Amino acid sequence: MQGVILENINNPEELRKLPVSDLPELAHELRNYIVDTLATHPGHLASSLGTVELSIALHYVFNTPDDKVIWDVGHQAYAHKILTGRRDQFHTIRTYGGISGFPRRDESPYDAFGTGHSSTSVSAALGMATASKLKGDTSRQHIAVIGDGAMTGGEAFEALNNAGVSKANILVILNDNGISIDKAVGGLSRYLVKITSSQKYNRLKERVWRKTGGDEKPAKGRNFISKSLAALKSSLLSSSNLFESLGFRYFGPVDGHDVQQLVEVLSSLRKLNGPKLLHIVTKKGKGMREAERNPITYHAPGKYDAETGIQLHNDNAHQPLKYQDVFGRTIIELAEKNDRIVGITPAMPTGCSLNMMMERMPNRAFDVGIAEQHAVTFAAGLAAQGMVPFCNIYSSFMQRAYDQVIHDVALQKLNVVMCLDRAGLVGDDGPTHHGAFDIAFFRPIPNLTICAPMDEHELRDMMYTAQLENQGPFVIRYPRGLSVHPDWRNVMHNLEIGKGRCISEGEKVAVLTIGHIGNEAAKAVEQLRNEGRRVGHYDMRFVKPLDSGLLDEIAKKYSLVLTVEDGCIKGGFGSAVLEYYEERRTEYGERRIKVKMLGIPDCFVTHGPVPQLQSDCGIDAGSIKRTIIDLWNE
Amino acid sequence: MQGVILENINNPEELRKLPVSDLPELAHELRNYIVDTLATHPGHLASSLGTVELSIALHYVFNTPDDKVIWDVGHQAYAHKILTGRRDQFHTIRTYGGISGFPRRDESPYDAFGTGHSSTSVSAALGMATASKLKGDTSRQHIAVIGDGAMTGGEAFEALNNAGVSKANILVILNDNGISIDKAVGGLSRYLVKITSSQKYNRLKERVWRKTGGDEKPAKGRNFISKSLAALKSSLLSSSNLFESLGFRYFGPVDGHDVQQLVEVLSSLRKLNGPKLLHIVTKKGKGMREAERNPITYHAPGKYDAETGIQLHNDNAHQPLKYQDVFGRTIIELAEKNDRIVGITPAMPTGCSLNMMMERMPNRAFDVGIAEQHAVTFAAGLAAQGMVPFCNIYSSFMQRAYDQVIHDVALQKLNVVMCLDRAGLVGDDGPTHHGAFDIAFFRPIPNLTICAPMDEHELRDMMYTAQLENQGPFVIRYPRGLSVHPDWRNVMHNLEIGKGRCISEGEKVAVLTIGHIGNEAAKAVEQLRNEGRRVGHYDMRFVKPLDSGLLDEIAKKYSLVLTVEDGCIKGGFGSAVLEYYEERRTEYGERRIKVKMLGIPDCFVTHGPVPQLQSDCGIDAGSIKRTIIDLWNE
Repeated sequence: MQGVILENINNPEELRKLPVSDLPELAHELRNYIVDTLATHPGHLASSLGTVELSIALHYVFNTPDDKVIWDVGHQAYAHKILTGRRDQFHTIRTYGGISGFPRRDESPYDAFGTGHSSTSVSAALGMATASKLKGDTSRQHIAVIGDGAMTGGEAFEALNNAGVSKANILVILNDNGISIDKAVGGLSRYLVKITSSQKYNRLKERVWRKTGGDEKPAKGRNFISKSLAALKSSLLSSSNLFESLGFRYFGPVDGHDVQQLVEVLSSLRKLNGPKLLHIVTKKGKGMREAERNPITYHAPGKYDAETGIQLHNDNAHQPLKYQDVFGRTIIELAEKNDRIVGITPAMPTGCSLNMMMERMPNRAFDVGIAEQHAVTFAAGLAAQGMVPFCNIYSSFMQRAYDQVIHDVALQKLNVVMCLDRAGLVGDDGPTHHGAFDIAFFRPIPNLTICAPMDEHELRDMMYTAQLENQGPFVIRYPRGLSVHPDWRNVMHNLEIGKGRCISEGEKVAVLTIGHIGNEAAKAVEQLRNEGRRVGHYDMRFVKPLDSGLLDEIAKKYSLVLTVEDGCIKGGFGSAVLEYYEERRTEYGERRIKVKMLGIPDCFVTHGPVPQLQSDCGIDAGSIKRTIIDLWNE
Repeated sequence: MQGVILENINNPEELRKLPVSDLPELAHELRNYIVDTLATHPGHLASSLGTVELSIALHYVFNTPDDKVIWDVGHQAYAHKILTGRRDQFHTIRTYGGISGFPRRDESPYDAFGTGHSSTSVSAALGMATASKLKGDTSRQHIAVIGDGAMTGGEAFEALNNAGVSKANILVILNDNGISIDKAVGGLSRYLVKITSSQKYNRLKERVWRKTGGDEKPAKGRNFISKSLAALKSSLLSSSNLFESLGFRYFGPVDGHDVQQLVEVLSSLRKLNGPKLLHIVTKKGKGMREAERNPITYHAPGKYDAETGIQLHNDNAHQPLKYQDVFGRTIIELAEKNDRIVGITPAMPTGCSLNMMMERMPNRAFDVGIAEQHAVTFAAGLAAQGMVPFCNIYSSFMQRAYDQVIHDVALQKLNVVMCLDRAGLVGDDGPTHHGAFDIAFFRPIPNLTICAPMDEHELRDMMYTAQLENQGPFVIRYPRGLSVHPDWRNVMHNLEIGKGRCISEGEKVAVLTIGHIGNEAAKAVEQLRNEGRRVGHYDMRFVKPLDSGLLDEIAKKYSLVLTVEDGCIKGGFGSAVLEYYEERRTEYGERRIKVKMLGIPDCFVTHGPVPQLQSDCGIDAGSIKRTIIDLWNE
């Protein structure tokens, strides 16, 4: 159900023709449309419900796409997408060939800057504002919409520090809902609560509210409001508000669900030049009871009943556990025996299942906020004092802490265990979230041990091994989604570092795999075996150090090696195998092993179901089988 | 000259036996010792002169090494090194086999955490403090000494945000000198000036000063001082100081060159639990007139006259320009013709020579502070609006902005030119600063063009090519130090993307090089030619895309390929060549090209002169020659 107003809004120009008084009803229709659509086409629900009024107000007041709006992270931009010409494709969101779950420059001119990772919006808006200034365009506005969670990310602070002394036309809208994906943490978050809950502020807010007509009449007195806001600002925060310290003019807090007030405030701010910050307070999940009550679950709830909001659960009683849950349970099991173990996550406790440990051992599990860089150096500090931190960071977010792994962990040989969840293709979230590069970017770093489990028992063994005395820096990568066995629990063993294992012996072609994608290879190998081709299969376990003994053995028995990884080909695991064989060539005499590499090709992979993407990349069982046959017949 | 007090201080325990009244004289001696030693053994002078009193006071008051002191960046830690058992080795600083220019855990137990890159100290201190808390050790103190420049780095903010809500025993000492290597920039810096220069503060400070006896008598009234400090704090900064916003107790500002006052203040703070920040004001270069006057030049001034402080310049009239200066001049030349060009540096204007453009075109050249992440996304924002930003970041610091290059630049195919100065081995600064990994970490990223010039004319051609319409993301890496030709100026040409060039034809062995290290290979090839072995040499210019045509041609003419790069072997340029040849093997029939790779091996390389380190890695002319002979004789 689109609603009578919404069905006539095909773009922001049409939106701007509506009277202000229609906007609350439009917000209502838009919210219903999102709730109805996502009930059967899963997506990021709660964040987008929180920004319905803001999306309307921004496009109503500003001259988009000439004025630039950048949605930090971007999973809150669904209303924006619907209002900017993508209403009828909205049901295709996050599906293969459909629209992206994040803003993308190549999807719409209204998507001023692509996002997906957090805390980039202020930098990008400042860049755009600076470009406008250089071109002599003084009227264009550049708006960054950033959550209070994303504001803790260091890059946002770097940008505020730089923007505060520029004279650029930049408006930062701090969307304060006290939550990112999990509950927001840290000093900034407490500070925002303090501002917002202050008595003085509340009294002033009430006064503004009353004078402007309360619930009944739409606000008119633009001058009064701006004056009141100014008064609010100067009386409450005159001295040195955090943002004013950095050179921003601060306005707010304002109710982010009062669309008419937002329109008024934004209209005033539009006329102000220079860097300014508007603090709005919103409710994640706004307008849907279940989501308001439980915004963490409803961040991306999957399918649910559109009427009641109740989640529709698949019957997964007989499915294997997710890898993340195996991690979450295993770290507790290990920590109960080894009191040097602690857990760290940068704002992803639910996503990586460290929430289990945070509940069970609150003193030993840390959510440090959206702060990957800090998370890794914090872990290094703990390790320097003899602890064994398990620092769990999604593979694509680990790109944020690359220098810290090199400079603080690897160089100092500290025993930090870096668990890379969401390694490899992740599916619906698409190119910003695929963990494509970690093997390639970590492999060149000295002192790292890098491994990947083929199933959850190996994951547990790797975690067990990593926490033993003096193991040094340890990287364990594993994918999003389900593990393999009906029973995840095994008796954990100490794995020999740098030793792989033979899954099946064969002739002519040896398939060398790393990690969970090995299961696809195993299927291919079994099918071929049934068809009479006996191909070897080796689960190498370690990318670094490589199992040189096993590689030498393989070189003696087979003439062709096929490497398979759920990661980029360039510089990855296959490349490591190739480098090894090339180094050893004189020792093998004239005999020569040929290496063919499968993995993610040299392009950014789109969003869609993982099996589809694996097939596109040629690393699903079917593709692997075809490649083996080609090699066999060579 | 060590001075009579200093010569008897072999460790902090001996320091602690001195009466407080001896400390000013010790500071004097320590300063002289640093000035005298660095006159002939170059190092980071000005920063270390600024922290002499702080180093004394910290080791005097705290029970190091049990209490932990972490020096952010670490180039200001020379007095610390001298006081902690390294007085007599001090003259070996930054020399091959000598002590490091930065704190290193493996050098001394007093070096609690290794540094070199900026803004990590608060995270590490919080990690250590958390470890102490978990171990039930409540008395140990954990101190991060961080400059106002380093404080703008995002990781420091992430750490403050996290630490502010912890109850950890952490003391952050903000060493505010208004300068990092270049002048500090941004909102935070202005804010600190505002605090420090406030009338009210100055009056109070004077009062404290007078009541404690001014210049004459050493301060005694510890209680009075702590009370005064508290009053200072509450009257001046009661409402919401930036640091208090984040949950720290703020103290200061305090004169960082009054060692007795520092001892008093630190003694009071030592008894306070929880997170606290002490703001001290120091002068970079303190005590040496030339360095105080010009702290940027005297950051690392090379050799100078110990008496007058005047720098001793080598006669370099007939030397080639430094690569950085070729960059600095060429960007101006290009920007004068192409008004879409802008320049960006994260706090390294002098180091990368963008200061020339900042002077000539102040509106188009930006120092964004120590903020690599922001620098890259800021550049992406500019490019999204049609500008062509040249973002100049040292190779090892680019590790900080890795995600931003992937997520903001490469994925969106934006025309950002990333100039990586200090790529390859850098010499005296050692393992934290070698630009060893950039080829390997950027090569897997789709949409990037990656190149490296063999001389300054190629650098200019690459810069020219990169700024042409629609070139997409462009990486140009070049080393620290001198370029090649007597005249740096050439008429710039448009280079064909992905095309290398033949330096000299030969037989049997082809040497494939990338970048400036090609000159070492050229020497080796010439020597061999004189000795009767005609070896081919190709300057590949581009790591990505590779010149496949040229590689095919080489495969036809030669049977052995030797790749040489000033970067890590694993996953690097050689690995790219190897991958290419392996892919093409079926097309070459039974013929097979063998590849041997030279570069930086899989370990962290120490500090020392570049030629020495190149020889250790086997990539200087002599080593290359020996390797070629081995291949030739195979």
